[in-house]
Amino acid sequence: MEIIKIFFDKILKLPEEEWLAFKEIIVKKKLPANHYMLHEGEVCDFIAFIEYGLFRFFHNKAGTEFITAFFFDNEFLSNYRSFLTGQPSKHAIVSLKDASIYIIKKEKLNQLYDNYPLIDRLGRLMAERLYLGVANRLDSFIYATPEERYLELLNRNSKLLSELPQYMVASYLGISAESLSRIRKRISQT
Amino acid sequence: MEIIKIFFDKILKLPEEEWLAFKEIIVKKKLPANHYMLHEGEVCDFIAFIEYGLFRFFHNKAGTEFITAFFFDNEFLSNYRSFLTGQPSKHAIVSLKDASIYIIKKEKLNQLYDNYPLIDRLGRLMAERLYLGVANRLDSFIYATPEERYLELLNRNSKLLSELPQYMVASYLGISAESLSRIRKRISQT
Repeated sequence: MEIIKIFFDKILKLPEEEWLAFKEIIVKKKLPANHYMLHEGEVCDFIAFIEYGLFRFFHNKAGTEFITAFFFDNEFLSNYRSFLTGQPSKHAIVSLKDASIYIIKKEKLNQLYDNYPLIDRLGRLMAERLYLGVANRLDSFIYATPEERYLELLNRNSKLLSELPQYMVASYLGISAESLSRIRKRISQT
Repeated sequence: MEIIKIFFDKILKLPEEEWLAFKEIIVKKKLPANHYMLHEGEVCDFIAFIEYGLFRFFHNKAGTEFITAFFFDNEFLSNYRSFLTGQPSKHAIVSLKDASIYIIKKEKLNQLYDNYPLIDRLGRLMAERLYLGVANRLDSFIYATPEERYLELLNRNSKLLSELPQYMVASYLGISAESLSRIRKRISQT
């Protein structure tokens, strides 16, 4: 449980009693590659934290995968909109390699929110972080060029980025595989 | 204060003591048209609730306004990212017509979070709502056609939409004024 404690301590250092109650509902799970954490049409009933692994978040439109996010080590993993609204997810979440994650189920989290005000506060801080993540993605989609968006991925996790199939990175950037090659070449020369 | 109470009651019905403390920090303000609620480069230190009015949220890039959101009656108004991070805003928020809003300052809200667990919970529920707003905008930018995005605006507030200058709506949709005219004609014929 050490990694998960370090992660949450950075968000809010819970007193011993609250941490023990919180730890109680966290389930560690190892996953193989190509494991569906969530299918399109399912309701997302979890927030997870990625110890290690690599996930893609995508929507199928007429047989084409539109990848809108990748999730790397030390990041949250959820379709948080579906989690909050209880509506079916329009996106699937799939592991791209072996992974280890910590899962928190919505129902149990809500019970803790009712019993421990400080865990409710932790929930606020998680919601705020998740807000920042999606707001940054929105900005990036609107303002950034594909090259700038590629550099953002590179900054987040260059090692894992190198393990991603090129066609997935191209899908995320909304460009062709050829354009991505040109961007990679340009960057490697600078 | 009635409208603001009705609005917040829908999010979380606070007990009398908490509501009185919360009400205490809410400041009602009337604004003229073309009033800058926030300039680019300023830190956003408020969340506001719009009783009535119409606001645009935009970024200037090389002299061109990129409008990424409109805010209508009964909606939250903030650069919530700047509010959360304390970083300067990359967007400005400007009123398009006379408005009446309720303003909550960050510093005072944080004090209440510390003193009233239920107001902390209200903060979580606000963060969750704001998350859903930005997640919907992201989806709309990625998946929806300009026509679908126009229909979304129409659904949110058709009356206020009709008061917006066409070039601003076109900027929000990322299309030319001519394309917007064609979309409006098509919709009016169906």
